[in-house]
Amino acid sequence: MKNRFRVPAVLLLLPLLFGLRGFPGDAASQKEIERRYAAAIDPASIREFDRLLSAEPHHIGSARGEENARWMVARLREWGLDARLETFDVLFPTPRERLLELVAPTRFRASLAETPVEGDPTSAQTAGQLPTYNAYSIDGDVTAPLVYVNYGLPADYERLERMKIDVRGKIVLARYGASWRGIKPKVAAEHGAVGCLIYSDPRDDGYFEGDVYPLGAYRPEQGVQRGSVADMPLYPGDPLTPGVGATRDARRLDRKDARTLTKIPVLPISYGDARPLLAALGGRTAPREWRGGLPVSYHVGPGPATVHLKLAFDWKMVPAHDVIARIEGSVWPDEWVIHGNHHDAWVNGASDPVSGLAALLEEARSLGALVKTGWRPKRTIILCAWDGEEPGLLGSTEWVETHAEELTAKAVAYINTDSNGRGYLGVGGSHGLESLVNEVAGDVEDPEKKIPVGKRARLRQIEDSKTADERREARERRNMRISALGSGSDFTPFLQHLGIASLNLGYGGEGGGGVYHSIYDDFSWYSRFSDGEFVYGRALAQTTGLLTLRLANADLLPFDFTSLADTVGTYVKELRTLAADRREANEEKTRRIDEGVFAALEDPREPLAAETREPAVPYFDFSPLENASENLRRAAREFERASESKTAYEPARLAAVNALIRSVERGMLRPEGLPRRPWFKHFLYAPGFYTGYDVKTLPAVREAIEEKQWSDVNREIARTAATIDVCAGRIREAAKRLTP
Amino acid sequence: MKNRFRVPAVLLLLPLLFGLRGFPGDAASQKEIERRYAAAIDPASIREFDRLLSAEPHHIGSARGEENARWMVARLREWGLDARLETFDVLFPTPRERLLELVAPTRFRASLAETPVEGDPTSAQTAGQLPTYNAYSIDGDVTAPLVYVNYGLPADYERLERMKIDVRGKIVLARYGASWRGIKPKVAAEHGAVGCLIYSDPRDDGYFEGDVYPLGAYRPEQGVQRGSVADMPLYPGDPLTPGVGATRDARRLDRKDARTLTKIPVLPISYGDARPLLAALGGRTAPREWRGGLPVSYHVGPGPATVHLKLAFDWKMVPAHDVIARIEGSVWPDEWVIHGNHHDAWVNGASDPVSGLAALLEEARSLGALVKTGWRPKRTIILCAWDGEEPGLLGSTEWVETHAEELTAKAVAYINTDSNGRGYLGVGGSHGLESLVNEVAGDVEDPEKKIPVGKRARLRQIEDSKTADERREARERRNMRISALGSGSDFTPFLQHLGIASLNLGYGGEGGGGVYHSIYDDFSWYSRFSDGEFVYGRALAQTTGLLTLRLANADLLPFDFTSLADTVGTYVKELRTLAADRREANEEKTRRIDEGVFAALEDPREPLAAETREPAVPYFDFSPLENASENLRRAAREFERASESKTAYEPARLAAVNALIRSVERGMLRPEGLPRRPWFKHFLYAPGFYTGYDVKTLPAVREAIEEKQWSDVNREIARTAATIDVCAGRIREAAKRLTP
Repeated sequence: MKNRFRVPAVLLLLPLLFGLRGFPGDAASQKEIERRYAAAIDPASIREFDRLLSAEPHHIGSARGEENARWMVARLREWGLDARLETFDVLFPTPRERLLELVAPTRFRASLAETPVEGDPTSAQTAGQLPTYNAYSIDGDVTAPLVYVNYGLPADYERLERMKIDVRGKIVLARYGASWRGIKPKVAAEHGAVGCLIYSDPRDDGYFEGDVYPLGAYRPEQGVQRGSVADMPLYPGDPLTPGVGATRDARRLDRKDARTLTKIPVLPISYGDARPLLAALGGRTAPREWRGGLPVSYHVGPGPATVHLKLAFDWKMVPAHDVIARIEGSVWPDEWVIHGNHHDAWVNGASDPVSGLAALLEEARSLGALVKTGWRPKRTIILCAWDGEEPGLLGSTEWVETHAEELTAKAVAYINTDSNGRGYLGVGGSHGLESLVNEVAGDVEDPEKKIPVGKRARLRQIEDSKTADERREARERRNMRISALGSGSDFTPFLQHLGIASLNLGYGGEGGGGVYHSIYDDFSWYSRFSDGEFVYGRALAQTTGLLTLRLANADLLPFDFTSLADTVGTYVKELRTLAADRREANEEKTRRIDEGVFAALEDPREPLAAETREPAVPYFDFSPLENASENLRRAAREFERASESKTAYEPARLAAVNALIRSVERGMLRPEGLPRRPWFKHFLYAPGFYTGYDVKTLPAVREAIEEKQWSDVNREIARTAATIDVCAGRIREAAKRLTP
Repeated sequence: MKNRFRVPAVLLLLPLLFGLRGFPGDAASQKEIERRYAAAIDPASIREFDRLLSAEPHHIGSARGEENARWMVARLREWGLDARLETFDVLFPTPRERLLELVAPTRFRASLAETPVEGDPTSAQTAGQLPTYNAYSIDGDVTAPLVYVNYGLPADYERLERMKIDVRGKIVLARYGASWRGIKPKVAAEHGAVGCLIYSDPRDDGYFEGDVYPLGAYRPEQGVQRGSVADMPLYPGDPLTPGVGATRDARRLDRKDARTLTKIPVLPISYGDARPLLAALGGRTAPREWRGGLPVSYHVGPGPATVHLKLAFDWKMVPAHDVIARIEGSVWPDEWVIHGNHHDAWVNGASDPVSGLAALLEEARSLGALVKTGWRPKRTIILCAWDGEEPGLLGSTEWVETHAEELTAKAVAYINTDSNGRGYLGVGGSHGLESLVNEVAGDVEDPEKKIPVGKRARLRQIEDSKTADERREARERRNMRISALGSGSDFTPFLQHLGIASLNLGYGGEGGGGVYHSIYDDFSWYSRFSDGEFVYGRALAQTTGLLTLRLANADLLPFDFTSLADTVGTYVKELRTLAADRREANEEKTRRIDEGVFAALEDPREPLAAETREPAVPYFDFSPLENASENLRRAAREFERASESKTAYEPARLAAVNALIRSVERGMLRPEGLPRRPWFKHFLYAPGFYTGYDVKTLPAVREAIEEKQWSDVNREIARTAATIDVCAGRIREAAKRLTP
């Protein structure tokens, strides 16, 4: 579901000079298992899984979606895993009626259709394709003047206000990008708009990037990005069952009480359909950064372009079929290492999600082959193929909510994958796993460059560094940093609702494309323009497999809290800087008002609303966070020292210590959750309330500052510091128990 | 001629607490003359001059051009000035044949025509309009594959080389912008191209900026930027008479020996004509920053697009009619204060140059009115309307070369104006005049904001500052900085050939437009989209008039060398930083080659030429420049102290001191001139060899570093330092003579 691969905020490597983390003494037998596992991963097999599973449209609720799920269960069983379907009942609206027309000053009716292209057989499977729409838009029938709102973020509306433009009663036209799409109708509705159109501008996603499909890899004129617009920063999953599993007999909200449905009707359109609308807009010329790649002068309106938008949906319940496969642990069966990838697509989804799903299946096949030789992991391995990720992480969220208690007790870590492609390993996740990721990335070979994928990622980071400090860190830091996780794929319920240490990874960033959530994301496209030889599919299966095997077999769980502590320390510093920058920016603005800068610069032919004075940004007491961060750092060092001791691995101590290690991430949770959204309980990582996918670290504090909730800041600092202290306490306790 | 107005590198103000610089004791009578002068400036009169002079196409050599010149002489005489024509004979080619066609893979013939628009009568004066072409392109008839080269700068060709693309034998397509246009064919020819097309991309100059003419102010689909492509960084003026006046009997070069003609045929085209060429290009997708605003995927080629370009010119000699008007000085008639603005246009030129010319005429009218009351300036004022600026500063350069000896002896300063518009005062020039400019800018009122134009410019600079240091300087420095002058208008021969202190100024930066050098730069366009009420024309006439009157009447010439010394100090620091940055960048590049960064990042589907190691950048001895800069600073302080002494203005000393003051700028000249271009003799300011308009300060040193001529750097440091020491010596001598 998550768009494009982010390379920069990433990762990895350094060869291990001291064996494998978590494996005391000789790790030869583990290395041998890993070698056998990795050698069996076969690109041809991954290719075949991708071809079969993307052969027809297979969204949640579709016949093919269920067939794919049953086919996977059958294969997993053949390979020796204990596999079954687990099914939930979820709300999944599909369009009954879609109408978009320009009614003034000229008339135009939007096609709202993606056209099949020659040489791409599955693009012509129109019968099975979902129409282009945004899931969880409400029904509506509105006619109103149009306003162009750029990406539709809060800052864009501030800019409109300065231009004296009010969107109340208007339909807004926003372009895709710069936030998760669900943010756009949410912010539009907050400002009083009555409808929202979202289009793919060719500057961001079309011919500007390269030749369009089928000539090249990029989004053609009629290509549309489908996608969910549920208010997922409130809670993901079935809108009717927040916090509980959507089992048949679950208590459900009335649809009218489901807070994650949009407040206004929303429709995604192509740039072919958007062009006549933009061309018909008058009013002020759009600010420079708002202008896209269409051959028109971008205006903001409102009007004279007036549009009629009519949407009606079939609000039906559908089954979400999760595939759950297990390999029971031989020593600690009640410690679970989980890897998941969704299996539903918006249409054929050869890239999203099948490129990642096919690698997961290959992982299962190779693990199954080991099982057939009599091998068993020490911990239980669970492999999952989620349904309904696209509309809102439905399958994973409902499964996690259903099994919350057991997962809280047993889960060691959750590894998530999704789309995969050519290029660089990108990893985000819990920083306690950063060292493990670096170790594994040193052991997987890049298929193009024949160097460890971790080394290639580090070289990329050197190239991408913007400052000398970043460059020095990219070269010299023991670990390459992994990024923090916001949302956008199935790790969210594991990490942010239950506090299960999680990773999200995949390859990408080489080549490009523009078929995301369209009928063109299919096997023809993927074979020509992405990892058509599926060698990065092999690298992915090797990476996730090695991570899984080390987590499953390590005597001492391979967590490293010094990386976590270092990372938390950087976040705390960022917050101090953020507050100082806000303070300084506000002072500078006030000074400019006093000096008459704004008045002197306003062009009388383009009048602006006066800049208004705001109260000074107060100083905050960051010391609780700084003390907590220092506490965490010391605890991490104690644990590191303890885990180096010769006696550290006395079997008697291990179960208790490993339980404590698992509980560290849980320590970042608070039962009351984040402000405004109690479902999100993690106080270190959360998707932004106004970004949707992008992470906000230390979110309670950061968002209070960003949203100028000055009176909340000190309180959120204290609450966040307390969660860090809980983690530090558990780490220190683990260290004590390790020490003889 | 110079495109667009640059706001940032600008200016001004602080109220004078101590009377007027150069006027000892009471400056009341000067203030009264200035008041009378400024009050007489009438926007309606400027408007009428603009309307009349832009009523028909009036390029050099045209009947209307000569009529305009004679009309101005008649008016100037009526107003009481001693006016006459001074005529030179110059080479001015115009097209006999222009053909551009795409011959493969499809066929298309470029229209090469700007279309008249309704409601704009002069746009239909097709009989008098020069066709769209680049002056001083050679004749040619070539057919070759096309390569897109972005802006066609040296760095763009380095990028092409990395992509393994060779332009030898190809025709290049470059977009306007980022350099003076003449640089593009020069660099293309250096790389072996056989032809050069230059087009206006709508991203830079077209619908991306706003609605196109006649709906809005911006360049329409068929609009073309005419312009000179002579190699003016070698020498401006008539290509056949470098260094000497193009009088009837001057010795002329053979055309084949004229080094400023292009080496390959060059033609400017519209984005309407460029679009099919760009759409037909294949090969690698253009780098991201190279992509423009047309709705195509930009490729670099070469081919399959193949074009046929045929150009033949009528290489005729035409008269250049300069208008020269004088008001004889009453006390020091052999000290000249000169203000000039060109009168020739590419077509109607209501903005370029008539908006500035009309203000100059109004200045003449108002000065004439003072003369008629019996007033006379102490020094001689000379007002000039230059012909042939557009093809290459012809009229001004030939006049300056003809009168070089007299100008060297007598000229106090040259003030240049050109196009004018709404907005902010922008000034570039000799830094000895920075304080004077700041004083005058404090005395002229902005017509929209009713605050001094200097204050408005300073507020703009606060807003535009990128760093806290810049902001602090914008707020706190006594003077707003004026920028240094490169080229692009008629100040060049005065400043850079003869060392006459010069200023170039005008208003602009509010609103915008895209009619530069097209048939649409006419009175209809200017009235609707620029300073249609000519109130900024009034502000310009007031600004230049006050500068002229102070320079003409001051007892002690109002130069302030502390600003000059401070500015030279910043340039010296910049050079040190430039060398250090180059050294560091080279070290970093070598390190990345050693680490394998480039190899690891190369996408095998888009192979690149290997990055090559370059020798380390040596360390240079900047101490001669640092000592010279310090010497200048001390001399400036001595002069400042001396000029504050009560006895400073003893009449007996003034003539000798003022002669020394005038000679300071001459001190920056060296008779042998700059490396590669002896015509340019100024060692503080020059147009860049590879920028054309944009200035290179301390050019001999700066260009040696930028172009990696490492073995030249220390020598050029020494030569440049010597010129600064000459200036310092003259300033010190002036200070001594002022002191009793």
